[in-house]
Amino acid sequence: MTPYSNMTRQALETELTAVRARYAQLQALHLNLNMARGKPGKTQLDMVSDIFNVLTPDSDFSCDGMDVRNYGELCGLPAARRYWADVLGCRPEQTIVGGNASLQLMYDTISKAYTHGLLHSPRPWCRETELKWLCPVPGYDRHFQVTEAFGFQLIPIPMTETGPDMDAVEEAVKDPAVKGMWNVPKYSNPEGVIYSQETVERLAALKPAAPDFLLMWDNAYCIHEFEGEFVPFPDILSLCAQAGNPDMVIEFASTSKVTLPGAGISVLAASEANIAYLSKLMGVQIISFDKVNQLRHVLYLKDKAHTLELMRRHAEILRPKFHAVLDALDREIAPLGIASWKRPHGGYFVSLDAMPGTAKRTLELCRKAGVTMTAAGATFPYGKDPQDSNIRIAPSLPPVAELEQAIDVLCVCLKLSALEKLLEQ
Amino acid sequence: MTPYSNMTRQALETELTAVRARYAQLQALHLNLNMARGKPGKTQLDMVSDIFNVLTPDSDFSCDGMDVRNYGELCGLPAARRYWADVLGCRPEQTIVGGNASLQLMYDTISKAYTHGLLHSPRPWCRETELKWLCPVPGYDRHFQVTEAFGFQLIPIPMTETGPDMDAVEEAVKDPAVKGMWNVPKYSNPEGVIYSQETVERLAALKPAAPDFLLMWDNAYCIHEFEGEFVPFPDILSLCAQAGNPDMVIEFASTSKVTLPGAGISVLAASEANIAYLSKLMGVQIISFDKVNQLRHVLYLKDKAHTLELMRRHAEILRPKFHAVLDALDREIAPLGIASWKRPHGGYFVSLDAMPGTAKRTLELCRKAGVTMTAAGATFPYGKDPQDSNIRIAPSLPPVAELEQAIDVLCVCLKLSALEKLLEQ
Repeated sequence: MTPYSNMTRQALETELTAVRARYAQLQALHLNLNMARGKPGKTQLDMVSDIFNVLTPDSDFSCDGMDVRNYGELCGLPAARRYWADVLGCRPEQTIVGGNASLQLMYDTISKAYTHGLLHSPRPWCRETELKWLCPVPGYDRHFQVTEAFGFQLIPIPMTETGPDMDAVEEAVKDPAVKGMWNVPKYSNPEGVIYSQETVERLAALKPAAPDFLLMWDNAYCIHEFEGEFVPFPDILSLCAQAGNPDMVIEFASTSKVTLPGAGISVLAASEANIAYLSKLMGVQIISFDKVNQLRHVLYLKDKAHTLELMRRHAEILRPKFHAVLDALDREIAPLGIASWKRPHGGYFVSLDAMPGTAKRTLELCRKAGVTMTAAGATFPYGKDPQDSNIRIAPSLPPVAELEQAIDVLCVCLKLSALEKLLEQ
Repeated sequence: MTPYSNMTRQALETELTAVRARYAQLQALHLNLNMARGKPGKTQLDMVSDIFNVLTPDSDFSCDGMDVRNYGELCGLPAARRYWADVLGCRPEQTIVGGNASLQLMYDTISKAYTHGLLHSPRPWCRETELKWLCPVPGYDRHFQVTEAFGFQLIPIPMTETGPDMDAVEEAVKDPAVKGMWNVPKYSNPEGVIYSQETVERLAALKPAAPDFLLMWDNAYCIHEFEGEFVPFPDILSLCAQAGNPDMVIEFASTSKVTLPGAGISVLAASEANIAYLSKLMGVQIISFDKVNQLRHVLYLKDKAHTLELMRRHAEILRPKFHAVLDALDREIAPLGIASWKRPHGGYFVSLDAMPGTAKRTLELCRKAGVTMTAAGATFPYGKDPQDSNIRIAPSLPPVAELEQAIDVLCVCLKLSALEKLLEQ
């Protein structure tokens, strides 16, 4: 195959005719496939559903001296706090174990900063005249939407191979209106980048102008390798404390992609001063999260080592799916020189950069051929990719056979939109 | 026994000596009893723990065309919405089924009104110069704390035998700063009053000055009779709609005292316009609540009729506890004329009005004898009972034998504080 950029106009037109014919064939299949969100597939859900064996009517529902079925213990079942401390490498006193959604803990953190302020806020954020937030791009649409919903001006920070561009971050935090920054430090969404030790240390040592600047540290994929061995990650709470910023970070994680996306448990980790401050505010909102589900998870997952064994079984299911995507791209797209992509070893996404100006058109073509993808632009603040280039591929949900069809469609659509673009000039 | 008010000073002093001796005996028992919160007792929890039989690893986790274990369906599992619509007498489209805590749904409603405004708000409540909220008294401390946390001035509205004093409410809502009102319409906390049909209709027909005035309708005890037959309750959504106020009310309920306090499911019910507005805001906060637990509840509780059967079994456990409290008060306190109390047929509390100026002292005496009660003043805004009189008794948690000890202590403390008060004059 010849790179499109080396082809004559006539050759491109011939190729367009061939690709259009192929696209028509695929449309005729009336597919209905979904690569839009990072949802685990049914095989993964079935694999962990033995979690529903660990608590029965005859179980001992007392744990840590309390009846887990009743009200109480806002910060979570102590056994669940110990579990998360083991996974994250922090101390149990630094955790609050929540409900089924870490997104809710994140939203509520921003919401409480807005209504009441954080520990070091001179005033609630709703009383500030200007609010800005740093958003590594490409990044996670739901993160961006949270800060957008509270009226922040979203400042894009370019991602590099080692995490966010730290020169840009260090410059940006000189503005006292910049109140914080989103981070997915391990297997970033969507690129699968692991922040380097240097990046993490520079983040922990930031000297922001805002006294209540907050690193939102969404460690969503902290144990989520699908290729190779577990990659240890630093305890951001310790690093911030060592750098003299003990209260500057709040970390989040969940079992959404360990046990069940809709019915897992989540955690918030922070300095003890932050835990004391936040739990006082949270005590008005909720008496306690679901400690029965917390106990169910502790009994099922046991500890970090046992959880990593489970994650290796998830990896066995996920790896062929990622390979199907990457193999198809290598085979169909790489020789044409019309897109580039990352090769992650963990997380739930493949980030692809299509020819500038073709991402929207590619996904429109996919949709018309029955393949749903994350909306173009979603990985950028306000849903607007200035290059109209980035496409997030989520291979986890469909079975491999369906996925191969879906990625086949995507490759054809990438070609078609590239050819259209090249020929319109 | 002679009423204290009819006794001579000498007789009161003789009585004080006797009661002090009895108090010393009770202190010597080193009791550790709790009547502080409306927590179901272990017998109730054990009775419903067969709920953990209904989902096993081999269960069918698909329901309403979706895998309940995965992400999705913000407003809740359709089957769970149908269940709550049956219980509340509204339509499934008028519900959002939440996590384990209706308090969280209530807090989040106020919080979102504060940060974003409600459907008919001219601006978010954080942009208002003055915020006021109507609080029937005595009432529920956690309600009051939510609106206090957002800076509302809490306006007490006296409770009557038929619900809040409607003349006072109708007068108060003429102030455009008054943004809403707390309500526990059936078996109010703590008095166990059922709002009369006339009260409910007058509330539904309010013409408040604030265009975004909100009735917070916490139907916490809507099916919670412990004495007598189930008492039907009106659908407040229909009544508000009929009165031309379709969006003025949001109703809340949960299974916290049907299945498990820490691990039940909650619901918010409102007009479809409100559901559309709120779910759009909630979509930024959470992908979906725990649909596995929602399915577990639907399979276990089935429908309203089956749930009412379960509630009759709860009543069998609760009734002797309430009788123990009321019998002791009738026997020990009524003849002395030093307190009055309501005789509820449902809910979780007995509300007692001690001799003015003695509630704090009574509860201090209880505490020193090892009996924990809800703090004095808790049933009033800011925790301040102007009469220092109201005491909330929560008989549900202790077994009957312990409860009899605890109420014995309370009776002695009521006598002691009354005698101290009478003799200080």
